[in-house]
Amino acid sequence: MSNSDRPLDILNDSRNKRIMIELKNGRQFIGVLKSFDIHINLVLEDAEEHAEGTLKRKIGNVFLRGDTIILISPQ
Amino acid sequence: MSNSDRPLDILNDSRNKRIMIELKNGRQFIGVLKSFDIHINLVLEDAEEHAEGTLKRKIGNVFLRGDTIILISPQ
Amino acid sequence: MSNSDRPLDILNDSRNKRIMIELKNGRQFIGVLKSFDIHINLVLEDAEEHAEGTLKRKIGNVFLRGDTIILISPQ
Amino acid sequence: MSNSDRPLDILNDSRNKRIMIELKNGRQFIGVLKSFDIHINLVLEDAEEHAEGTLKRKIGNVFLRGDTIILISPQ
Amino acid sequence: MSNSDRPLDILNDSRNKRIMIELKNGRQFIGVLKSFDIHINLVLEDAEEHAEGTLKRKIGNVFLRGDTIILISPQ
Amino acid sequence: MSNSDRPLDILNDSRNKRIMIELKNGRQFIGVLKSFDIHINLVLEDAEEHAEGTLKRKIGNVFLRGDTIILISPQ
Amino acid sequence: MSNSDRPLDILNDSRNKRIMIELKNGRQFIGVLKSFDIHINLVLEDAEEHAEGTLKRKIGNVFLRGDTIILISPQ
Repeated sequence: MSNSDRPLDILNDSRNKRIMIELKNGRQFIGVLKSFDIHINLVLEDAEEHAEGTLKRKIGNVFLRGDTIILISPQ
Repeated sequence: MSNSDRPLDILNDSRNKRIMIELKNGRQFIGVLKSFDIHINLVLEDAEEHAEGTLKRKIGNVFLRGDTIILISPQ
Repeated sequence: MSNSDRPLDILNDSRNKRIMIELKNGRQFIGVLKSFDIHINLVLEDAEEHAEGTLKRKIGNVFLRGDTIILISPQ
Repeated sequence: MSNSDRPLDILNDSRNKRIMIELKNGRQFIGVLKSFDIHINLVLEDAEEHAEGTLKRKIGNVFLRGDTIILISPQ
Repeated sequence: MSNSDRPLDILNDSRNKRIMIELKNGRQFIGVLKSFDIHINLVLEDAEEHAEGTLKRKIGNVFLRGDTIILISPQ
Repeated sequence: MSNSDRPLDILNDSRNKRIMIELKNGRQFIGVLKSFDIHINLVLEDAEEHAEGTLKRKIGNVFLRGDTIILISPQ
Repeated sequence: MSNSDRPLDILNDSRNKRIMIELKNGRQFIGVLKSFDIHINLVLEDAEEHAEGTLKRKIGNVFLRGDTIILISPQ
């Protein structure tokens, strides 16, 4: 990872790459990051919901509201 | 999905199309997106509430407050 | 429903008509919409609280704070 | 009720009159509205806390923080 | 109580007087109001925490964050 | 305590002195206040976490986010 | 620790050093701080999630949303 100055740079570097997202309610999503904004609202492509390490369902394209997100990790 | 720059573009592309919405309290709605704003407040037409994959009730037109929404997925 | 551009239009079209409101804590109110603002604060006339499809109590005029509202549906 | 345009008008019309207030935690207060502001912070005189339709305690003058309020109804 | 126009006037009139404060988590404090601001952050002197009508502990001077407060009542 | 006009004055007077902090989730920290800002974000030095009156662990330097804080009391 | 004036200085001094972070839901992360902003959004490198003092999983690079954070401590 480059020594970037702003946290959102990690999202900018992850465009069109797979990321994992965990929400405040414990749900986990994996998909290709297509877009995000300063509220951390974001859109995933080929999104899947995972639970305890296994695939729970395929969702396709999905908009996730930023204020429900706890963490985002590039895969 | 086009390689859009802003998350709200997915909502703009979904006007007059069916979307699925999940709320923070676990409730799920499916309907035709008629309008939305930057707070993610939105209006659905022909809306239905679903629970565990089955139709729970038909609501017709409904306004959903953006701050209760977790995710939105085009159907 | 007209193909309106803004979600609040559905409230504007519902002035002096009956609407159903559900709150974050699960409570449901039905009444005639008299006024609303951009925070979705609103005032109902002839308001009734309903629970599981039956009338729970008559409240008359009531002010509901917007940040407690999940959904609003014209009746 | 007059056909007012703004929800706060119902509070303005209730100055020096008895109102009932319900909070997000389920508590209910009845008292004479002395003042309010745009955050729905308000002050009641001769306030009483009620629970399940019966008087729980007399409080006298009380300031209630607007963000804890669900509904307000003139008595 | 004077027929004041703004809710914060009740706090202004309570400077150097005893007030009772209840927090969102149910805790209750009694003390002499020394200062407050528009967020309802406030400082009490000779503060005591009470629970179910009895003294729980003496705290001395204490800063309380406004967003945790439900109600304030002059004693 | 001086008859200060602003609640944050009590924090300003507590720089380099021991304060006790309670969080919304019930946790309690004691340490030397090094800095704070208008959001009540603050940094403690020689911080300890206490639970039910006994030392739970030593943390050293710690940044506490203001929106998790309920009360602050000089020791 | 220097007698800094602003709480965020402790984060600035921790760039490229290991920090421990605790979230509102009780989860704990340890990693090298790469960047942060005024919302306390931050990015960790070589991040690990810990639970009750033991390593739970390795995450690598991770973005943590500031509004979920309770405390941050340099290691």
